[in-house]
Amino acid sequence: MTPSLVLTGLSAATMAAPVGGYGLIADAAIVLTGDRIAWVGPRADLPTAQKGLERRELGGRLVTPALIDCHTHIVHGGNRAREFEMRLEGASYEQIARAGGGIVSTVAATRAASEADLLASALPRVDALIAQGVAVIEVKSGYGLDLDTELKMLRVARALGRLRPVRIVTSFLGAHAIPAGTDADSYIDGVCLPTLRAAHAEGLVDAVDGFCEGIAFDTAQIGRVFEAARALGLPVKLHAEQLSHGGGTALAARHGALSADHVEYATDADARALAKAGTVAVLLPGAFYTIHETQAPPVQAFRAHGVPMAVATDWNPGSSPLGSILLAMNMACTLFRLTPAEALAGTTRHAARALGLADCGMIAPGLRADLAIWNVTDPAELSCGIGINPLYQRIFGGVA
Amino acid sequence: MTPSLVLTGLSAATMAAPVGGYGLIADAAIVLTGDRIAWVGPRADLPTAQKGLERRELGGRLVTPALIDCHTHIVHGGNRAREFEMRLEGASYEQIARAGGGIVSTVAATRAASEADLLASALPRVDALIAQGVAVIEVKSGYGLDLDTELKMLRVARALGRLRPVRIVTSFLGAHAIPAGTDADSYIDGVCLPTLRAAHAEGLVDAVDGFCEGIAFDTAQIGRVFEAARALGLPVKLHAEQLSHGGGTALAARHGALSADHVEYATDADARALAKAGTVAVLLPGAFYTIHETQAPPVQAFRAHGVPMAVATDWNPGSSPLGSILLAMNMACTLFRLTPAEALAGTTRHAARALGLADCGMIAPGLRADLAIWNVTDPAELSCGIGINPLYQRIFGGVA
Ligand SMILES: [Zn+2]
Ligand SMILES: [Zn+2]
Repeated sequence: MTPSLVLTGLSAATMAAPVGGYGLIADAAIVLTGDRIAWVGPRADLPTAQKGLERRELGGRLVTPALIDCHTHIVHGGNRAREFEMRLEGASYEQIARAGGGIVSTVAATRAASEADLLASALPRVDALIAQGVAVIEVKSGYGLDLDTELKMLRVARALGRLRPVRIVTSFLGAHAIPAGTDADSYIDGVCLPTLRAAHAEGLVDAVDGFCEGIAFDTAQIGRVFEAARALGLPVKLHAEQLSHGGGTALAARHGALSADHVEYATDADARALAKAGTVAVLLPGAFYTIHETQAPPVQAFRAHGVPMAVATDWNPGSSPLGSILLAMNMACTLFRLTPAEALAGTTRHAARALGLADCGMIAPGLRADLAIWNVTDPAELSCGIGINPLYQRIFGGVA
Repeated sequence: MTPSLVLTGLSAATMAAPVGGYGLIADAAIVLTGDRIAWVGPRADLPTAQKGLERRELGGRLVTPALIDCHTHIVHGGNRAREFEMRLEGASYEQIARAGGGIVSTVAATRAASEADLLASALPRVDALIAQGVAVIEVKSGYGLDLDTELKMLRVARALGRLRPVRIVTSFLGAHAIPAGTDADSYIDGVCLPTLRAAHAEGLVDAVDGFCEGIAFDTAQIGRVFEAARALGLPVKLHAEQLSHGGGTALAARHGALSADHVEYATDADARALAKAGTVAVLLPGAFYTIHETQAPPVQAFRAHGVPMAVATDWNPGSSPLGSILLAMNMACTLFRLTPAEALAGTTRHAARALGLADCGMIAPGLRADLAIWNVTDPAELSCGIGINPLYQRIFGGVA
């Protein structure tokens, strides 16, 4: 028989609730069997059969589903601190580019790094997220832009999941930027698509992503990537409408994408399309904050049309060196005016959906026993604090 | 003989540098004797006499002065997460006030809390700052607004310094808000000033602070508090020009204040006055961010006139629930356009000056051996990261 454990003396924000709510159960009990949640409800309703099991009393603490960071770029070489500094010292974008800054510097550093180097630099990032109760991390490729490096990044992402008690979901992001010395179409057809097929053949790809923007790829080019993904049976998602309105969100919806990410410049019609497709809008306030964007995503339209909103760090060395999922939640509230309940749904239930995962993101029978136990009583405290980590303990897959 | 230790294999951002620089020494050595720094310089120049001492090799890491958080309100009862949530759910300020929100809720919770409760809730905040390499924390009273509670807060602040390896500098902030049932003048003369004298008689006050603003106290009222401080031989500082231009900065300068804090609405003339008085401008981007302020402090004027700028968390439960000094540095860069070197000076050298401390804030012979050792090589990384803590180790008073 699988070992069972009963958690009591807690309030549970189950997130198994109508939109906008926590699904809060005061004085709750949660029964874990193996790596699964067997039962959750008011302690008074605990089935008699469960009453003899091993108990853990949590002193009135709040328990939530373990958090999920559904959009990161944590596997990369180098850092861009010098570029950050140059910008603040008054350098122009041209001067920074001449000094080797921008995404090309990350591509160069990632190509130059060994698999061991990339792994060593990514592990502390994974550890920092785990320390905040994150049990699932999405990791993208996209700093290789050549076959060897894209595969190297994805292998490192998979290794992170073997070395740490966290689930890694990979996204192939070959269509991230146009490497020097080629054009977008040649790159997509000559490098990106063959690389996608090679990465898929190695079992390295859980989803296919792209960057649809004036400075990157247009909807026709991304469309070809999505067609290739469909042929391989892989789900898609897209960096869309971050800096301008380019039609990426509508494209993502047409392809039944798991998510459309950033979406600052999405329109009401885009929101309607996302809702109809069941596509999640992933909000990334760290990038909004860092690049001094002033156009916030159309949260009211997402609410009105019933688009599920996720929240993630977008942790990357340039536009969002944000290493805290809790801070992403605070920024989503402060900068985008999400409610704390929406922010928590954004890093649990809706983040799971943005990754195509049906087995986590809520506290409900049958789901994975991925829980975060917090030194707070009110779930709004998780979003209210800035740069504060009140995690008390985590239980991932039933293991504390 | 006092034990000595030589740190090598490091680069040192000494902060003993002209404004705007790090005072960086590549391949440096630092000699510690007891709780003091005995020598710092290029490793090649290490005096022969020091070469036989115990060595620690730091693997090329960056060493900075330990950080200093020169403006906090970390001793308080309760939290204001519910108010944060109500605001995002669309409640008006009036509705929040009717629900008992605002500073009055913190005053009520702080009055109701026992000394042991206040201490227990403040310790994790101190620990979070220590974990980021903070060796000195300023703590204000101001949520009592009556004699018993103001003294209770300051006793708790002193206790924090006894229980943790951190120096606590207290500020008496009786002139923080006008309690219900009285008026500003009666409160200042009848409660605030007698409480200041009583707190000073107990040795609880290192400096005297106030909140000069339309919603709090005017310059005449703060002037009386400053006169009382002068009579007791205590230095002064002031929350000034946060929400509007009220003349607090000029008042602070006239009184030779250690610091004028917030100062979003300070003018060029205010900057000139601060420079002349040698008063530090303490920038508090956490409050700016949280209350959606749009007027940034006049950083260019501070630079032009040579006003030293400090950066602090303003950690408080309402307008700045910011528990990270590193994040305050990032926000100072991102929101106020400080350079990373200015941000680091703001939490070391200039923060020390804002507290009237001459024995810390730089790596220089004779100063306290308060050091932070970081898992970074470029000091700009400390400000570039968002919600990331790259501290490797701390040495406070010569003790690792
Ligand atoms: Zn991204
Ligand atoms: Zn303050």
